[in-house]
Amino acid sequence: MKKPASNSITRRRFISTSAICAGGLALTYVSPAFAGNVLAARYTVQQVIDLILKEGGFSPVPNTVDTLKSGSGDAIVTGIVTTMFATIDVIKQAAKLGANFIIAHEPTFYNHSDDPNWVNNNSVVQQKQALLKKYNITVWRFHDYIHRLKPDAVEYGSIKKLNWLPYFKGDSPTLSIPPTNLGALVQHVKTSLSIAHLRVIGDLKQPCSRITYLPGAPGGKMQVDFAERDKPDVLIVGELSEWETAEYIRDARLLGSKIALIILGHNFSEDPGMDYLVEWLQPKLSGVKITHINCGDPFVWM
Amino acid sequence: MKKPASNSITRRRFISTSAICAGGLALTYVSPAFAGNVLAARYTVQQVIDLILKEGGFSPVPNTVDTLKSGSGDAIVTGIVTTMFATIDVIKQAAKLGANFIIAHEPTFYNHSDDPNWVNNNSVVQQKQALLKKYNITVWRFHDYIHRLKPDAVEYGSIKKLNWLPYFKGDSPTLSIPPTNLGALVQHVKTSLSIAHLRVIGDLKQPCSRITYLPGAPGGKMQVDFAERDKPDVLIVGELSEWETAEYIRDARLLGSKIALIILGHNFSEDPGMDYLVEWLQPKLSGVKITHINCGDPFVWM
Repeated sequence: MKKPASNSITRRRFISTSAICAGGLALTYVSPAFAGNVLAARYTVQQVIDLILKEGGFSPVPNTVDTLKSGSGDAIVTGIVTTMFATIDVIKQAAKLGANFIIAHEPTFYNHSDDPNWVNNNSVVQQKQALLKKYNITVWRFHDYIHRLKPDAVEYGSIKKLNWLPYFKGDSPTLSIPPTNLGALVQHVKTSLSIAHLRVIGDLKQPCSRITYLPGAPGGKMQVDFAERDKPDVLIVGELSEWETAEYIRDARLLGSKIALIILGHNFSEDPGMDYLVEWLQPKLSGVKITHINCGDPFVWM
Repeated sequence: MKKPASNSITRRRFISTSAICAGGLALTYVSPAFAGNVLAARYTVQQVIDLILKEGGFSPVPNTVDTLKSGSGDAIVTGIVTTMFATIDVIKQAAKLGANFIIAHEPTFYNHSDDPNWVNNNSVVQQKQALLKKYNITVWRFHDYIHRLKPDAVEYGSIKKLNWLPYFKGDSPTLSIPPTNLGALVQHVKTSLSIAHLRVIGDLKQPCSRITYLPGAPGGKMQVDFAERDKPDVLIVGELSEWETAEYIRDARLLGSKIALIILGHNFSEDPGMDYLVEWLQPKLSGVKITHINCGDPFVWM
């Protein structure tokens, strides 16, 4: 299976048009000698974002949530952390690593548009903003665009970690793996994605081969739509609304269908994409250390 | 703590204006002799709904989802089942009980407005509609209105089952129970509400007394709003979006707050309300058997 595409901009050409040299002066032209010394290159946050958007070959997404949540596009990047959620712990870890730029897949302030006034006088939002300011950390969300890479880099990273790339066609979340049973599949998923606990609907002894992997929380409509259209043996999701997809699967089974469901948890279902982002981005950004942090989930299962 | 209110309509007066006698003729006047013999009264679905709405003393809710999902308002009620989800199993159990009217708190067709075309050509919806027709079962959703009883009957039923009525003031989901710790609280909640598994964020040894109980899935905005305003030791919810309330609680704790979270699961958090509905409605509907069915949840926890 092909990796997510980069467009034709070479690293050298990008640096020659947008990097800032060690002295901090913006250059419109960089001599070949300097361009070869990419370790010396310094980028602003905005230049890193522009590079990602150009390399991804994306069309603009109207009203995208992929915006800065703190800090500044002008900040010189000292290091990058990729993660699912820029939690308080992730912010502190980034600061310890000397990284001032966090690329997070999900919201920073607990709502999709990251409106800090979603709930008035939110003390947790205020403290988090203060902490980000104290550490001079810029957070950018990389959500709408990373899902538009071809193939979707979150899907690709997850399928890769599940060791299913040989069965992945890139244009569909549905793939056929060698026949197994639901119990063995659950164990494989837990081990591959480092998940301690998850929820399942189905008979653990039932055979399965056709899998639809829908990471994150794309909504019940999309989850049920894929279940109806692709008719997988197992639908694997990150998160769901219980009254939508879970009840649909329960009724489907009570009506005789063998479709099963695995709910991974939001973080674990998409984290492999933010891990894979390091592999995708690092070769395009020599000289800037990119570290992935799996923020885990906060739950105690009882 | 006062029970949810009934308005001033007496059973006799309601029956005298809206019941159908054993012979099936609509009466505008019922003699006192007949009105005393309420066991002989027969109701249509619509008359039961009208009785509920009158007894609840509700103002109309614009665009309510509390509509018929199958069957007919003209059907003569042979028995009533109250439940959270009118699953395929609940429909079959109702039929076995000889009950042709299901009052369900949550959607029947897997989306909030119960649009059968939410997903095109949904085979599960089509089979469920055929089953409801085969058994001549009418489903009515009782969601928007039951939450508007004073106090909210879902909240009241849950607090009652948790044995916390002495601490419940009725106008707030926040109450102070005798001091305990989070681990003991979780065990009490699991036992009281018959929950086998649930998820928690918090330190099981931490003390707690102030509880905010928000059943169902009212959305992260309301959950976080109550957490900020009422500052409970423990927020108990039915269901949440992980990127909203769970991440808010995780960050709050990392910033030093002691707030904890218990996620009950949607069904178990509100089922006591649909159970309590029998107690509220049965005395108003003598002669019609009302049975509660706890539909459980469909999950295997692994």
